Amino acid sequence: MTAPRRIVILAEGRFSPLESKTANQALRYIPDEVVGVIDSRQAGRTAAHVLGFGGDIAVYPDLRASLAHAPDTLLIGIAPAGGALPHDWRPLILDALRLKLNIVSGLHTHLSDDDEIARCAALHGAVISDLRKVPQEYEVVAKGSWKTRPAKTILTVGTDCNVGKMTASLELHREFVSRGLNSGFIATGQTGILLSGAGVAVDSVLSDYISGAIEHELDRRAAEGFEYLHVEGQGSITHQGYSGVTLGLIHGVMPDAMILVHHPSRHRDDYDLDLDDVSRAISLHEKLLEPFKPSKVVGIAMNPVMMTAAQAAQAQTELERKTGLPVGDVLTGGRPRLAQALLDHFAGQH
Amino acid sequence: MTAPRRIVILAEGRFSPLESKTANQALRYIPDEVVGVIDSRQAGRTAAHVLGFGGDIAVYPDLRASLAHAPDTLLIGIAPAGGALPHDWRPLILDALRLKLNIVSGLHTHLSDDDEIARCAALHGAVISDLRKVPQEYEVVAKGSWKTRPAKTILTVGTDCNVGKMTASLELHREFVSRGLNSGFIATGQTGILLSGAGVAVDSVLSDYISGAIEHELDRRAAEGFEYLHVEGQGSITHQGYSGVTLGLIHGVMPDAMILVHHPSRHRDDYDLDLDDVSRAISLHEKLLEPFKPSKVVGIAMNPVMMTAAQAAQAQTELERKTGLPVGDVLTGGRPRLAQALLDHFAGQH
Repeated sequence: MTAPRRIVILAEGRFSPLESKTANQALRYIPDEVVGVIDSRQAGRTAAHVLGFGGDIAVYPDLRASLAHAPDTLLIGIAPAGGALPHDWRPLILDALRLKLNIVSGLHTHLSDDDEIARCAALHGAVISDLRKVPQEYEVVAKGSWKTRPAKTILTVGTDCNVGKMTASLELHREFVSRGLNSGFIATGQTGILLSGAGVAVDSVLSDYISGAIEHELDRRAAEGFEYLHVEGQGSITHQGYSGVTLGLIHGVMPDAMILVHHPSRHRDDYDLDLDDVSRAISLHEKLLEPFKPSKVVGIAMNPVMMTAAQAAQAQTELERKTGLPVGDVLTGGRPRLAQALLDHFAGQH
Repeated sequence: MTAPRRIVILAEGRFSPLESKTANQALRYIPDEVVGVIDSRQAGRTAAHVLGFGGDIAVYPDLRASLAHAPDTLLIGIAPAGGALPHDWRPLILDALRLKLNIVSGLHTHLSDDDEIARCAALHGAVISDLRKVPQEYEVVAKGSWKTRPAKTILTVGTDCNVGKMTASLELHREFVSRGLNSGFIATGQTGILLSGAGVAVDSVLSDYISGAIEHELDRRAAEGFEYLHVEGQGSITHQGYSGVTLGLIHGVMPDAMILVHHPSRHRDDYDLDLDDVSRAISLHEKLLEPFKPSKVVGIAMNPVMMTAAQAAQAQTELERKTGLPVGDVLTGGRPRLAQALLDHFAGQH
């Protein structure tokens, strides 16, 4: 067995509950592998100060300051819009490689394809892992294997991007496992791949292959004999930039049930679209699957970030009243509740 | 001005009304540039025999046989599923390059990136044009520029792939031009790019950029001052393999009006999905735009291929009764009818 990594996370200028998605998920799910976070803005604080979790893991002003904790891996912990490598990160990455740190990156720009970076890594014996690099076997058009797939598939969908779909899928999978069910988690983005060690970054395939790529991954994992497969959703069907990825994923998975992830205190998306009409979102997802199979949103995973407990409780009551669905936070009491809703739904189908 | 090309079209084994899409469109729209078609199965016949149009342009058994007509360009006229280069075409392409023919290709596999093919082209002074190669400036996430775009955008959508969306857009654009309107045509696939000399192959960008790529092309062309922009649709919102491309395109364009293209004699798609529920297709498209703007399907471009005149007339009557929309074949009387429906729709919005 390999030793755990000693990861320092680059989140420069953006370490916060809402902006540094990959960093935050690493701190939540693999904290034992994290030795520090880099953000000059937050230097001197701890992860727990900034996020409310992550304990005493320290925030450093720069890479050099983090070396006291002997990191062996630099994780790019923030995802710039578009996914390309910001120009001012290059010197920092080269610096890390010269210090023999491995790099784990979820950028669209594959660092291992960058001549200067690849040469520097080779020279210093460091390894670059591009989480978004998709092997060629995934570049296929969907075949329609959902029709004969024995596993029940559960997909998280959302009213917006960056709303908690990966967390919801991962937590519901963990709840299924804790109940002794034969459940698998399918990562579809860089963070999920980082945490689970497998998956396919569906936003990084050519657009003709979105649906085929996730179908290929499902076929591969279904062969392991899972009864349930929890698939991490991506984007949102009404997000102007990413709706194509979202629908390709939906039709690649053809989920047997969906969980809608919603953040009630976020009222507008990147494009100023109103996000409050949850009933419309539910109806739209179900209509997009209706030509293929009757698939329902069976619960709402409510993301309570930036809300007080009282605000969250009120939002939950309102959402339940409006939709008639069970609503809950997967990081607290909502996890068993939503898992039960899924199991009841499947039991009702027999 | 450059001399017209002398194109021989590779359509081996698949030259027919329904299979050889790119070949057929070249024969319809740029016949003056076509000197022959290669398909050993149909050799000795003419384009008109096989397609019902294209006149006396001959079908040859192989490339060598076509040389009597002195071609200077080989067009790859069929698009294999997935878009990759079939193994047995390689010797033919190398042969063409050795004969100093330029190559125009709509394959996903960029021939100019293939070492052996690129070397051979360079050696013999031949030029390779990869219609699906997308310049880097198109690799952007959508910005939301539809909100301030002055041109009216019209998008063709379809109940299936390969159903006539490019033809419908091109013909409606031509009808607008013939009426003295300031209209542009925006190609989004390899055939449209071949015919119009511009555009972006939206199925060939990374899936995060589908919507951004078409938005970039619209912004670029809108700057030319068009009042109307006809955008060629791709795929279908219910095609399991390509729905992601379709929705990315829809949300990248945010059309002011849509024309649904439907082929009544095709009842099932590649995945055995029932295609007859046209009302459902219309409703689904309108619902996907509803959160952004009120956009309607204002007419149906009916593709009558493989139908008798009586069958087509009956199908048209039924479609009109079911949907209450004007229905017509854009290659005959439907063109002015659907163009008028669009103009009436826009007039009604003021």
